[in-house]
Amino acid sequence: MSGTFTKAFKQADYHVSGHGSRNLQVLKDALESYDGGMESDMYGSGKVIKDFQEKMAEVLGKEDAVFFPSGTMAQQIALRIWCDEKGLKRVAYHPLCHLEIHEEDGLKELHHIKPVLLADESRLIALEDVVNMKEEIACLLLELPQREIGGQLPDYSTLEEISAYCREKGIKLHMDGARLFEILPFYQKSAAEVCSLFDSVYVSVYKGIGGIAGAVLAGGKDFIDKSKVWKRRHGGDLISLYPYILSADFYFGQRQEKMAQYYKEAKELAGFYNECHRVSTRPAEPVSNMFHVHFEAPKETMESLLAGLYEETGIGLSGHIREINEQTSYFEVSAGDLYGKVPEEKLKCAFQKLDEKMRGL
Amino acid sequence: MSGTFTKAFKQADYHVSGHGSRNLQVLKDALESYDGGMESDMYGSGKVIKDFQEKMAEVLGKEDAVFFPSGTMAQQIALRIWCDEKGLKRVAYHPLCHLEIHEEDGLKELHHIKPVLLADESRLIALEDVVNMKEEIACLLLELPQREIGGQLPDYSTLEEISAYCREKGIKLHMDGARLFEILPFYQKSAAEVCSLFDSVYVSVYKGIGGIAGAVLAGGKDFIDKSKVWKRRHGGDLISLYPYILSADFYFGQRQEKMAQYYKEAKELAGFYNECHRVSTRPAEPVSNMFHVHFEAPKETMESLLAGLYEETGIGLSGHIREINEQTSYFEVSAGDLYGKVPEEKLKCAFQKLDEKMRGL
Repeated sequence: MSGTFTKAFKQADYHVSGHGSRNLQVLKDALESYDGGMESDMYGSGKVIKDFQEKMAEVLGKEDAVFFPSGTMAQQIALRIWCDEKGLKRVAYHPLCHLEIHEEDGLKELHHIKPVLLADESRLIALEDVVNMKEEIACLLLELPQREIGGQLPDYSTLEEISAYCREKGIKLHMDGARLFEILPFYQKSAAEVCSLFDSVYVSVYKGIGGIAGAVLAGGKDFIDKSKVWKRRHGGDLISLYPYILSADFYFGQRQEKMAQYYKEAKELAGFYNECHRVSTRPAEPVSNMFHVHFEAPKETMESLLAGLYEETGIGLSGHIREINEQTSYFEVSAGDLYGKVPEEKLKCAFQKLDEKMRGL
Repeated sequence: MSGTFTKAFKQADYHVSGHGSRNLQVLKDALESYDGGMESDMYGSGKVIKDFQEKMAEVLGKEDAVFFPSGTMAQQIALRIWCDEKGLKRVAYHPLCHLEIHEEDGLKELHHIKPVLLADESRLIALEDVVNMKEEIACLLLELPQREIGGQLPDYSTLEEISAYCREKGIKLHMDGARLFEILPFYQKSAAEVCSLFDSVYVSVYKGIGGIAGAVLAGGKDFIDKSKVWKRRHGGDLISLYPYILSADFYFGQRQEKMAQYYKEAKELAGFYNECHRVSTRPAEPVSNMFHVHFEAPKETMESLLAGLYEETGIGLSGHIREINEQTSYFEVSAGDLYGKVPEEKLKCAFQKLDEKMRGL
């Protein structure tokens, strides 16, 4: 079934989620605007990497920043530096933290850092979780928004309280801000304001920004200097990172100001889903451009149902459904450049059909 | 002085070494030949990465291969896998091995692997060095050619003997083949033939091949499967590596067959240097496209002398001189696409002037 489903999605006239296909044209479009004579960066030095790092340091309100090939590398290194500084190889994060579930235990295997898991898979980390922690830790990692539970966010006051508590207790606070720019419209804060609550921050350049790959780590000068040494140790200090840097800069310029629009569209889109029988979004009202759509039906059933929907309406909602258990399934949605291109009438028609089909199950 | 020297080099009409500027045009030229609709690789899967990996596995005569963002990452991982397999965290390599001098001790800091240093900074590893080693090791790394001593190579029979000895003793043999394609004309062997002496092989795609960045690790299927897990742990399993892969494939196609020409040109060029007073190359006769040029004069003197030479002749020999001690200095030369573009008359005139200037010191 998966094959038929994927095919039906790919062949749909319109896709509702994301910025579009991750094809080579994305890179070609970005490079178009730069002169061929522009010199490559060289192992972390050179104008192209320095300029972007300085720009991001300013955007994030930190002393310094460094471009990494991946967030996986950047975050392990951030935690390692804080652990070394305290002489304690223990950190705390959410059980669905990227480091815990998507990195083949790199943090443990390469850095021998042990995580304390706070809160549980159903909810965000609260101030009480931090205060009641029994183990001493070097660093607390907060992911904003918490992607694996639909992109939920704590109240801003909770963030401030956790930050104040960590400072008081000498715990470093690190932000997994893979989708930091996407949450600013909800918080009504600048990136620098949110980052000021944290000692170190990682942001991705290929989520809402839509670059090719790469990440930025920002923090104090000493922290960033250390991170460059670790970047070399990890094998991340490439002779040329410019293909990622130029595309990051290009799409940052194009999309930074669109985050409020994506957020508004995500709320509208979630509303459409929530009007359908046996369908609900998480969170009920999105707090960024992303959310999860839960179905009270198994994955196989939904793949079949949606494949039919895509074929009948020309509207592709998602190409990846994941199983939760035998009765329920979900997919992830990110409002991006494509949403505005879907004719309103066709979109409404598709959701009407979705509702009908879900009632027919 | 360094500034004036670098400027004089950059402003020279002709550069004698390398393929040309590492500017954005190198990437643009490569991407030109691919259709914008080509889909990105996705975290190690997808046609673009699979096809290139299969191609390189075949070229290198190994079961499987994997594309890495860097050789630093690929090689640490190769040694880690062999150490884990033997349950012994000790390897052997040359004192001027890349892992020992250019990686901020990543092998020790991340993998806790201890190196035994064989031979010394003046010569290659010989069979006796391996046979007489007191410590038990999991893996021996040989760098072909040994870059930091001018790109020297052992006799092929020595390679065969070391390989046979390692197999007999249960020592894995890993090749740092950053410049493997560049040495094939000297050995008069195929890449697969040389690789057959080794259990695992790393090759770079941006040395003689002249891609943007990246590396290939090749070996048995089980070894490569494990390397993919470690690649993720290191933060090297990027969502998109295609900018490096496409350019690697493009320039591999363009330059693979030119290695014999580069080798021939390197010998010719080395001959010109060796005819000059107080100048000698290492090796005396190159065995690949690369060699080092040693000057019996301090770095500062040579920068001043060469800046003048470049301005007078329009020929730029090198932009980076390194100090050996207070009396001697050197630079590295790689014959590449640029050599053939230098008018013979001008080149000979430049070497005549170099000889004169060296005699005048």
